[in-house]
Amino acid sequence: MATIAMKFGGTSVADIERIRHVATLVKREVERGNQVAVVVSAMAGETNKLVAWTNEAAHGGNNLAIPDQREYDVVVAAGEQITAGLLAITLNAMGVKARSWLGWQVPINTSAVHGSARIEGVPATDMKRAIENGEVAVVAGFQGVAPGTRISTLGRGGSDTSAVAVAAGIGAARCDIYTDVDGVYTTDPRIVPKARRLEKIAYEEMLEMASLGAKVLQTRSVEIAMLHRVPTRVLSTFTPDVGGTLLCDEEDIVEKKPVTGIAYSRDEAKITLHKVPDRPGVSAAIFGPLADAGVNVDMIVQNVSEDGETTDLTFTCTRGELTRALAAIETHAKDIQYRAVTHTADVAKVSIIGIGMRAHPGVAQLMFRTLADKGINIEVISTSEIKVSVLIAEEYVELAVRALHSAYELDAA
Amino acid sequence: MATIAMKFGGTSVADIERIRHVATLVKREVERGNQVAVVVSAMAGETNKLVAWTNEAAHGGNNLAIPDQREYDVVVAAGEQITAGLLAITLNAMGVKARSWLGWQVPINTSAVHGSARIEGVPATDMKRAIENGEVAVVAGFQGVAPGTRISTLGRGGSDTSAVAVAAGIGAARCDIYTDVDGVYTTDPRIVPKARRLEKIAYEEMLEMASLGAKVLQTRSVEIAMLHRVPTRVLSTFTPDVGGTLLCDEEDIVEKKPVTGIAYSRDEAKITLHKVPDRPGVSAAIFGPLADAGVNVDMIVQNVSEDGETTDLTFTCTRGELTRALAAIETHAKDIQYRAVTHTADVAKVSIIGIGMRAHPGVAQLMFRTLADKGINIEVISTSEIKVSVLIAEEYVELAVRALHSAYELDAA
Repeated sequence: MATIAMKFGGTSVADIERIRHVATLVKREVERGNQVAVVVSAMAGETNKLVAWTNEAAHGGNNLAIPDQREYDVVVAAGEQITAGLLAITLNAMGVKARSWLGWQVPINTSAVHGSARIEGVPATDMKRAIENGEVAVVAGFQGVAPGTRISTLGRGGSDTSAVAVAAGIGAARCDIYTDVDGVYTTDPRIVPKARRLEKIAYEEMLEMASLGAKVLQTRSVEIAMLHRVPTRVLSTFTPDVGGTLLCDEEDIVEKKPVTGIAYSRDEAKITLHKVPDRPGVSAAIFGPLADAGVNVDMIVQNVSEDGETTDLTFTCTRGELTRALAAIETHAKDIQYRAVTHTADVAKVSIIGIGMRAHPGVAQLMFRTLADKGINIEVISTSEIKVSVLIAEEYVELAVRALHSAYELDAA
Repeated sequence: MATIAMKFGGTSVADIERIRHVATLVKREVERGNQVAVVVSAMAGETNKLVAWTNEAAHGGNNLAIPDQREYDVVVAAGEQITAGLLAITLNAMGVKARSWLGWQVPINTSAVHGSARIEGVPATDMKRAIENGEVAVVAGFQGVAPGTRISTLGRGGSDTSAVAVAAGIGAARCDIYTDVDGVYTTDPRIVPKARRLEKIAYEEMLEMASLGAKVLQTRSVEIAMLHRVPTRVLSTFTPDVGGTLLCDEEDIVEKKPVTGIAYSRDEAKITLHKVPDRPGVSAAIFGPLADAGVNVDMIVQNVSEDGETTDLTFTCTRGELTRALAAIETHAKDIQYRAVTHTADVAKVSIIGIGMRAHPGVAQLMFRTLADKGINIEVISTSEIKVSVLIAEEYVELAVRALHSAYELDAA
């Protein structure tokens, strides 16, 4: 007997029939003798409808107005509340004792950053006791309670994070994330048909995969899984007995290839400041205002000065932040003293990820050579201990990902 | 400056445009210098959708199964939560500081009878402080929090009750119930076109009107208004500046006619037990099992015994309870010892209501004569200090109500 957490996303609970299917999967775990907490998202489509209403309510003739964030959370959190109640009803009707737990009831304590709150703790004493007494806990995902007992939400995809945090909070032996794919792949199978499902992936690798563009799991959920060492499985709601991928400790992975997976992101924009003074303090003059404007600068490259006095500086951010970034730079043009600014959104980031990289020198070199062989120019490079990312023209993304997938011997036989 | 409570029902908040109209009515009160709590129902249609889902979830092939009541409340309460958030967003966007308050946040403490919980107290300390600081409190109606911090709902129409209880809880000077009619009428204007809107009505009269079939306000809301002496107005969302009816103390009504209004209810069924023993204990033998079966017996009449040994006994209940009532009687046939049982649902109850009745003898007599003149047979009579109810064949309802409306001089000029 073990305590486990299960999580089902919006497509898995899209209607009552699917909720019933989810209930049978929960029942199966109960019949195996497990104690279960199950975290659910809103029914597919519900969240979009609620978000649209909040925008409509905020506008009132002004399309730029955004809704009060705290009230946005109140409205949107209703979606998961509905699913949690419906699944509890379904389970009870099937003879499985169950009750729903909303964010404030668990409680799932979060920061006060409404709309994208951060989980700070899940002191689920009462819920844990109920689970130990054999009652299935159906937890509304995506939501929590902020200081002042206000309802908060975690931002899109937050139910994954809820699930792992609940698993950690109740000391679950594992967390099963049921989704519409049957696991984590070496890369996006829509681009590379020969992509392989990974049996296991280290937390650190999954964290890089998620933050570099793989959409299987939300980054924050992987962080929490890693922090609390929660063995987390990704598996398919519709074929739960086939496959799946286990997130686990590095030590639990026997065969360590140099590269485990390849991620890409098209949500990239590049800005270059030409002929900025090559002197101390210039970086602060540029990146201070950008930080103040809420722009998350990702990659940065500064060319070697040619004349000893000025240099070119390039950095990237998400496409959604491009307008804000340009505005911040123009506002501070006097302090930065650049000659000209150019920008493009026709770029993408391709990354290779693998803990094996640490032990294998020359991994980055293979990437650069592979891309060069295909005639793909690298605009910016960024590295960490277990990943190498390059910025390239967006039109080469598929070509680059496929070439790298072959080069690192990831193709399925 | 006064503290007031306002309440808007489902049709008043049916879409974002109507919610915006509600917001302008709230804003107007704020601009008059009032401190405001506004109670809202779910958007028209939402509750029905949610209820349908709970039934679908419970059935699973068994159409008789009913959903777990506590979880039903969790699902259905989401409707009012959504409206409360949307109205708060709208008000904030219009420059009126506002926040939503859910049942558990206020708190609106209720009994544990999920699905039809009873409000037991509204110790709204924090909310009162927020209102005093000039923030509009948008309260989700229809919901509360039951012991064990579970979400509860008050049953259909419960938002009226929420509004009056909130008004009492914050010590409001008055409670304005905005609805789709412009006040309380002497009777149903769909039956009597000459029905008049009442400027004022005493709490006691309104309580009888509501419990005897008038659908303007929920009975429990009138009880709370009466208990806490909350001056309550019924007025139209769409023509708020015209008319309205004030519920107030008897003393505040100058002109007291013998009869204030006429109510009717078609939701009546009649059961007669023939030849039951005319001896002590027989009533207990009949009504004990009915109470155990959850049947609310309304009117009762026992004929004078003709043979000195047996008598006929007739009583009424709602049509929904008829099957249950007959089953209970048949189960206890041995104890009751009746010769035969007959029943019909083709009956209706017509009532005259008025506090002036106390001071005017002969009021009931006029009722009986008026009905007799129209050839309408009275099957059962029930009276209290301020009302007389009669059970008649359903087909005579409109005729009876119109005749009585004229006889008691209630017709508009």
